[in-house]
Amino acid sequence: MRFHILTLFPEMVMQGLNTSIIGNAVEQNLIEINVINIRDFTKDRHKKVDDYPYGGGAGMVMQAQPIYDAWKSIVAQVGYEPRCVYLTPQGQVFAQGMAKEYAREEDLIFLCGHYEGVDERVLEEIVTDYVSIGDYVLTGGELPAMVMVDAISRMVPGVLTNEESGSTESLEGGLLEYPQYSRPANWNGKEVPQVLLSGDHKKIESWRHEQSVQRTLRNRPELLEEAELSRADVKQILKQLKK
Amino acid sequence: MRFHILTLFPEMVMQGLNTSIIGNAVEQNLIEINVINIRDFTKDRHKKVDDYPYGGGAGMVMQAQPIYDAWKSIVAQVGYEPRCVYLTPQGQVFAQGMAKEYAREEDLIFLCGHYEGVDERVLEEIVTDYVSIGDYVLTGGELPAMVMVDAISRMVPGVLTNEESGSTESLEGGLLEYPQYSRPANWNGKEVPQVLLSGDHKKIESWRHEQSVQRTLRNRPELLEEAELSRADVKQILKQLKK
Repeated sequence: MRFHILTLFPEMVMQGLNTSIIGNAVEQNLIEINVINIRDFTKDRHKKVDDYPYGGGAGMVMQAQPIYDAWKSIVAQVGYEPRCVYLTPQGQVFAQGMAKEYAREEDLIFLCGHYEGVDERVLEEIVTDYVSIGDYVLTGGELPAMVMVDAISRMVPGVLTNEESGSTESLEGGLLEYPQYSRPANWNGKEVPQVLLSGDHKKIESWRHEQSVQRTLRNRPELLEEAELSRADVKQILKQLKK
Repeated sequence: MRFHILTLFPEMVMQGLNTSIIGNAVEQNLIEINVINIRDFTKDRHKKVDDYPYGGGAGMVMQAQPIYDAWKSIVAQVGYEPRCVYLTPQGQVFAQGMAKEYAREEDLIFLCGHYEGVDERVLEEIVTDYVSIGDYVLTGGELPAMVMVDAISRMVPGVLTNEESGSTESLEGGLLEYPQYSRPANWNGKEVPQVLLSGDHKKIESWRHEQSVQRTLRNRPELLEEAELSRADVKQILKQLKK
């Protein structure tokens, strides 16, 4: 899968995605991250990419031409018009299901805005998806684009090793993850729960599942509405609620 | 305000926060970003920071000791125990109101997890806030920490210039932002809306407000429940719903 990121801050995006998992996926050609500097496409002789907003108001607006030409260069390279995501607090709120869906694309373009926004006419021309990573305001679209590339990459077949993808994951079964413990068995006077040292795999599994249900009830009860629960789970929840 | 970020990927965090607004805030000493490499604190002679989970299962778990000692080094430096945020899909979902609240802290610590998680015992010992930036799974806590630092920094007094902070902002008044346009007036055959060229500020303001209401109704209707609406707004919404 190829990610094409249209930005005014190319170094920030390159370095920020340089973790072990994403880095390995790039090395193995499972994903490709193509960062395009919008400024390279301006026709302004001072390399300007923004100007005052029509109608007045604070800040600057990113102009249509450099963005459009940068976008056209990607389209020319790949031979079709891929889906183009504009990062904005105005968009649909990103969630795990969308990450899986986007991971099926061959190419995906991200447009990172800055300043007071982007000229509406170029958005109408090129953007297919308006996406927000959450209800908070950021200084630009780069961090949200990196967050989406990270979440989507994990869903591209082969990026996670069998071991990683086989593991229980937060949100995957609709329940929060159980607590994890590693060596030493006694740290700072705190013992690992005895059951985890028992070697009894059935007991361990059932303890972990109970912990997941308890945590979800305590921290994110709204997730239980969508989760797959057994009769034993429901009993446990009722018991906990009585306390 | 001082941010202390506990991570295994210090370069990623340093570079990823290097945008104009955050960079300027650091230069002006309005904020300080202190990145701490957890690996520097391991007592393992092979510099190991993780080990297998007790009770079995895929992946590795970050061990308690290096994290605890890295955290203690911050506490020793600042002379008290600041709030400590652990980035996890299990946490409370981050939102703009929380950014404002965190911006009042003198110091804020972020713990970035990786692999299959962090030994529960060190979380119990040091973490005060469990926060998620959204309902999706990422390869580590670095990107979410960067997102939070960015959102919180904007709320620190002096970081945004008067011009920037005075401007209408997405989500600020409970409504989405109106469309923006910049030079040229005719781009690619598309004209800027006439009203923006009229010079009539009252008309422009009222057109922009209508656009905000329309957009919010179209893209994020759930936000209207919380928004401050005038009678005229309600009329406009009812009219639009009839169509």
